[in-house]
Amino acid sequence: MSGGGRPRGLFITLEGGDGVGKSTQARLLSDWFEQQGRTVVRTREPGGSELGVEIREIVLHHRGDISPRAEALLYAADRAHHIATVVRPALARGEVVLQDRYLDSSVAYQGSGRVLDAQQIRDISLWAAEDLLPDVTVLLDLDVAVARGRLDNANKRFDRLEAEAQDFHTRVRESFLALAAAEPERFLVVDAALPPEQLAADIQARIAPLL
Amino acid sequence: MSGGGRPRGLFITLEGGDGVGKSTQARLLSDWFEQQGRTVVRTREPGGSELGVEIREIVLHHRGDISPRAEALLYAADRAHHIATVVRPALARGEVVLQDRYLDSSVAYQGSGRVLDAQQIRDISLWAAEDLLPDVTVLLDLDVAVARGRLDNANKRFDRLEAEAQDFHTRVRESFLALAAAEPERFLVVDAALPPEQLAADIQARIAPLL
Repeated sequence: MSGGGRPRGLFITLEGGDGVGKSTQARLLSDWFEQQGRTVVRTREPGGSELGVEIREIVLHHRGDISPRAEALLYAADRAHHIATVVRPALARGEVVLQDRYLDSSVAYQGSGRVLDAQQIRDISLWAAEDLLPDVTVLLDLDVAVARGRLDNANKRFDRLEAEAQDFHTRVRESFLALAAAEPERFLVVDAALPPEQLAADIQARIAPLL
Repeated sequence: MSGGGRPRGLFITLEGGDGVGKSTQARLLSDWFEQQGRTVVRTREPGGSELGVEIREIVLHHRGDISPRAEALLYAADRAHHIATVVRPALARGEVVLQDRYLDSSVAYQGSGRVLDAQQIRDISLWAAEDLLPDVTVLLDLDVAVARGRLDNANKRFDRLEAEAQDFHTRVRESFLALAAAEPERFLVVDAALPPEQLAADIQARIAPLL
C-alpha cells in the first residue's frame, strides 16, 4: 500500500519439522518472486550471519553439555544479530526476505523440551528481534512418521530412543499448530503431504494480495 | 543458620570499574576464608566457564560490529552456563564463591551505553541465572580519574575520545551507586581510595555475621 515507487519489503518465514519440505518451498517461492522482478534474500536461523555461524559452531561442537538457558540465549543472540544486520536492512531496501525458521521454531523446539517455558522463549526472541514479526509465516504441517520416513528411508528398528524422539517431534508439531491457531492472521498452515507444486500455488495465493 | 554439619554456601560478588582493586580484594578475602577452613571458588564473568571462554572469544575477537542486543544475549548465555555449571554446584557443596563481576556489571555497563534499557538487561540476567542473587555484593567505588590513573600512569593528551570515555565511565559509576542504593541489604559500598588492608577489614566485618 506504499504510495512511493519502491515496493515495501516482505518478511516471510517457513516453519515446520525437518523433512517437511521447507527448502523446496523456499526455492519455488523465491523463483516466483524473482519472476515478478523482486529481489529475494534467502536466509535461515540459526547461522544466517557471520556471527551466527560462529555461534552455531559453539552450539553444535562445544564439548560437554550446554545448560538449557545458555543454549536458548545463544540462539537469541544469533537472532538479534541476524535480524539487525541481515533482515532489517533487506526489508528497508524493499526486498523480500524468505527465512528458514524463526521465533516459532525456538518456541516449538525449546518449549517442547519440557525444561524451558515457551512464553519466556518467545519474550526473549522478541526482545532479541526488537519485536519484528513476519508478514506471513508458512507452517508446513506433516505427520511425524511421514517426515521421518522422508529423512531416513532405511528400515531401522524402532528403539526406545527413537520412540522418545517421536514423542518429542509430536510435541513440536502440536506446538507449531497451537502457535498457528493463536495467530491465524500471520500463519498459513498447509498440508505438507500435498504435491510441492500445489503447495506452492496455495502459498502464492496467500501472499499475492500483499504485493 | 543451618542446623546440619555442612556450612551453607556463600555467594559474594565484587563490582566496580576497572582499576578499583577488585582482584586485590578478592585475593585478601579468599585468604581470609581459607584461614577459616572454607573452600573458596574464585571465578569471574564473562569467561568463567569453558563455554564462557568460547563466548568471550567471539565477543572480543569477532570481525565487525556485534549488534548491541546480540552482545547482551551472549553475555547472558555465558552467565547462564557459568551459574548453572560452576556457581550453583559450588554453593550446593557449601563452598564460598568469590566472583569478579556479575549482573550489576551488565546493568551498569550495558545500561550506560544508552542503547539498551537497564531494567531489560537485569531481567535477562536474572532469567539466565534463574534468579540467583549474591548474598553480598561489594562495590568498590572510586573516582573515575583516579581509577584511570591507576590503569595508565602515562601522561597522555586528553582527546575527545578520552573525554567521551570519561563520560561513559562516570555514568557507569553512577549506575553502580544507584544499584547499591536500591538494594542496601545486598550491597556493601566501600571507598576504594582507602588502603587495601583497611578495605579488607571493612569487607570482612560485613561478611563475618553470615558465617
